[in-house]
Formats: sequence, structure tokens, C-alpha cells
Amino acid sequence: MTPQVYRTLAEYRIACDSLRASGARVGLVPTMGALHVGHLALASFARARGATPVVSIFVNPTQFGPNEDFASYPRTLERDLALCAEHGVGHVFVPSAHEMYPAGEQTRVHVAKLTDVLCGPKRPGHFDGVATVVAKFFNATGPCLAVFGRKDYQQLQVIRRMATDLLLPVEVLGHPIVREADGLALSSRNAYLSAGERALAPQIFGELRRAALGFAAGERRAAALREPVETALARAGFRIDYVELVGADTLEPILDEQQVPGRALLAVAAFLGKTRLIDNWVLGEESEGA
Amino acid sequence: MTPQVYRTLAEYRIACDSLRASGARVGLVPTMGALHVGHLALASFARARGATPVVSIFVNPTQFGPNEDFASYPRTLERDLALCAEHGVGHVFVPSAHEMYPAGEQTRVHVAKLTDVLCGPKRPGHFDGVATVVAKFFNATGPCLAVFGRKDYQQLQVIRRMATDLLLPVEVLGHPIVREADGLALSSRNAYLSAGERALAPQIFGELRRAALGFAAGERRAAALREPVETALARAGFRIDYVELVGADTLEPILDEQQVPGRALLAVAAFLGKTRLIDNWVLGEESEGA
Repeated sequence: MTPQVYRTLAEYRIACDSLRASGARVGLVPTMGALHVGHLALASFARARGATPVVSIFVNPTQFGPNEDFASYPRTLERDLALCAEHGVGHVFVPSAHEMYPAGEQTRVHVAKLTDVLCGPKRPGHFDGVATVVAKFFNATGPCLAVFGRKDYQQLQVIRRMATDLLLPVEVLGHPIVREADGLALSSRNAYLSAGERALAPQIFGELRRAALGFAAGERRAAALREPVETALARAGFRIDYVELVGADTLEPILDEQQVPGRALLAVAAFLGKTRLIDNWVLGEESEGA
Repeated sequence: MTPQVYRTLAEYRIACDSLRASGARVGLVPTMGALHVGHLALASFARARGATPVVSIFVNPTQFGPNEDFASYPRTLERDLALCAEHGVGHVFVPSAHEMYPAGEQTRVHVAKLTDVLCGPKRPGHFDGVATVVAKFFNATGPCLAVFGRKDYQQLQVIRRMATDLLLPVEVLGHPIVREADGLALSSRNAYLSAGERALAPQIFGELRRAALGFAAGERRAAALREPVETALARAGFRIDYVELVGADTLEPILDEQQVPGRALLAVAAFLGKTRLIDNWVLGEESEGA
């Protein structure tokens, strides 16, 4: 089945309206393209929840910093559409920047607090760009539900908060991280890795799993859970952006001298060469990293 | 006809959904209550455009500064509902602050540029509060159109920009300023005025009209249009907050030494005692101040 591809807001709105009019629940899967099995799992998840998956493909300029990889971000539209076809995704929205950011646009959506930690300080403006573009996609689509991967755990929490706060009538769902056989979290940015870097990359997963096993065995000292991850990855050749423990819902920092009070997110951002990889594990959730 | 009054988001959503399902176009009139003839004209305007008017009444805390009149803002719900009944408004949403600002809320909508002039610098955070709460009302309501008074001209432009930028499928309409017989623009805050202040207040209108007559007679020097308004009002006993000329669409400042290029907004904010009054006139639009 070749998907219907919508390039303008006008035709996309008509398609979403007519899906709804036919009684379908619209399940939005916002992506930046360069689709992989993880993205397609989000679409399947929407379908499993009774929704018709609609995939958007848009490399959103406002969520990239001036020194980030907006220009080089992989763009593989033909392959993306073929993958959608293979996986039964019938509706794909591929807007231009002009459709998403009307001439003279001046509006940003800002979510505070949740964006003060982890990637927030490292990528100034990133989450404003994310919250803004996702609000636009929600308003353009009118979805019953929307699915995001938990690899971008902080993004998921920011979007949940935004949707709740702005009274958007959409259920925001997180999907477990999809991993390669060796544990590397799927990411469009993995394509940047050299063979040598690719061989190293799964160590992030290995260290997160080691910490999760420690947590499962009863370890609650934050330093004992967090520090070995940072040390091991730095020793293996990663340039650490952060290794942090935060509350799983609040994202409030858990300091090294504290005990982990309950469910906690152990989150890593680290560079291999120029490629920034992120991954995470929710300690206290059996299957999270799987 | 007694209006249906909705106090929770859940019951309000059901009512709006069922209006839409019955084929009605929903026309939202967001207010802070203390309704007057101006508000009711907005509802009539919505009806004239083929919509079923839905009035929201909510004194929005986030658009008041710490030294402003949130606590003392007039709250006259029983009278408001009686006025709605008299004027055939069948649906009134009166949410609690908790409904509009869910526990733990952290999200703000910010519109840049348009908020850098006029009331923006005078009321820091005001337009973030306005843009945020109106986005919430739009998302809660799903209106086809929404009507705002042009007394709050800058607010109208900010909301238009926000709706366009966030791809909200709602038509934002401005309604001409409704005035008392002596020219004073209707405002819930007029209730604050003493008898002496009330007698002075229409001079704002008088000075705006004088400038508009000058403009109609060919005057294009910004100083010659703007300065006499400021001088006359100050002399009459107003404490001037601002008297400014800006582009009617862009709100970009027109300096005293410039010529007015086309349609321009002449806007006044001035205090009588503790009461802050605003008014405006779009030079180059015949009927604006009427």
C-alpha cells in the first residue's frame, strides 16, 4: 500500500477531518524522518491502541542549536515512504518549513522546570522548539493519541506536560526504547557513527543495565548507581555530556549524596566523535531498557 | 432562556462536542466577566457570523502583574448570567483556576515582537498570560471562530498571531470598540471610576477623535498627530502611561520625526487615580472609533 502523502496543511487537515468523520481515531507519530524500526514500532503501537497511525516527517529547525546538525541531519524521504508502505502506514504528512512556521511567526511554547535538567541546559532553546512544533502538529492533526519513543524520555515528559497544561485533548503515549541486538538504542543519528564508534556505542546500554541490576539488587545510593556509568564510559572513550539521576516523573535531580527515593531515571548523553548519543533507563521499571 | 453553565472542563468539552456534532459552528467569546454591552456585542457578532456563541468567564490570574488589580477585579457572576440569558447566550463556561491551570503546570505561550510595544513593557508577563490562557480556551472549546474587542487592540493582534503560528484552526475576529454615548470605551474597569473621574474619562476619546480628524484632513506628521493627545490628557489630569503611534498590523513604532506611512494605530493608556484606562483609534479606518 502506497501511503497518501500530504505536503500542505490544507490537504492534511482535510485528510485528518475525513479520518475522524469516518469514525477513525487518529494516532499521530511525529518524526524527523530517517525512519527506523523504532519509529515503525510507534506506528504499530498507535494501531494496537485502536488508532489509524499518521506519521509526520519534518526536520524541525527550531529544535536545533546553531552548532548542531540541522544541515547534516539525514533526510531519506523515499526510503521513509517505502518503509511506511511496508508497515501499513497509510498517511504521511511532509510539510515544508513554511507550512509549519507561517511568515512572520513569533510564537513559542515554553515548558519550565522539566527543561532545567539533562538536555535542557546543554541544548538551549531545544525544548522550546520541540514543545512549539509538537503543539503545532497537535493543532494541525487533532489526534486522539500521539506516540513518542522513550529514548527521548525528557522530550516525552515535556510534551506530556505541555499537552496537559494547554488542555490539548490528546493522549500522549511513551513507547519503550527499541534497541539493536547488541543493546544500542535505535536513533537516526546512529548513521553518523564510524565502524569503530559503532562498536563502542552499545557500552552505554551495558553500563545502564549494570546500574539497573545494581538497583534491582537493592543499591539505592545515587553515587554508587551513577558514578560507575560515567567513569566507565569516559574510560571507554566517550566524551560525557552528562550522566544524571533524576526523579522519573518530576525530573528533579537526585544528588550523588542522596538515596534514590523511588522510580528514577538514569540518563546519559555522550559523544563519540561528533555524534551525540542519548540513552536512559528507568530504575525500578523491569522492562524499561529492553 | 437560562444559559447552560459549565464549571468543569469535562462537562464543557462534552457540550462543545455535542454542539459541533449537531452541526453548529462554535463561536467563542472569552471574557473575564463583569459583562457589559460590549461583551454582549461580541456574542451577537458571533451569531451574525453563523456561530452559536459560547461565553467563557474567567479572571485569569497569569495576565495580572503583582501590583495589578487581580484581587479587586469586579466579579459579578449572577448579573453576568442574567445578561447572557437576556441576550440569548445559551452556553457559559465558568472554570475554576484549577481547571485552567492543572496542578504542576509549567507551560507558557509567548508571542514576541508584537508584545515589545504599548502595554507589553508596561505590563511584564501580561501577554504571555493572555496568549497562554487563550490557547487553553481554544483547545478546550474547539471553536470555529472567536471574537475579541478592539479596545484591547494589541491583545487581538497577539491572539491572531498566536492562532496563526500554532496552526489553530480558528478564525479570530475583532469587533469595533463599543462606547458610551459620551465616547468612553466600555470596560469592566470603568466601574472603578469616581464620579469626577468618570466625567473626565471621555476626553481620551475626544483627543483620539481630534487626531483622527487631523489625519483625515491630511496630517501625516507623527508628532503632530501624537503629541497633542499626550499634552491635552496630561493637562486634563490623566497620568499618562503611554500615547503611541504604531503600524496598525505590525505594531512597529512610528517615531515622532517620521511620517505616518499608512494605516496606523494611535493608542493611549492613562491613569485616572488608580484606574488604568486604554483606548485606541486606527487612523485611516473611517469607522474605527465609532
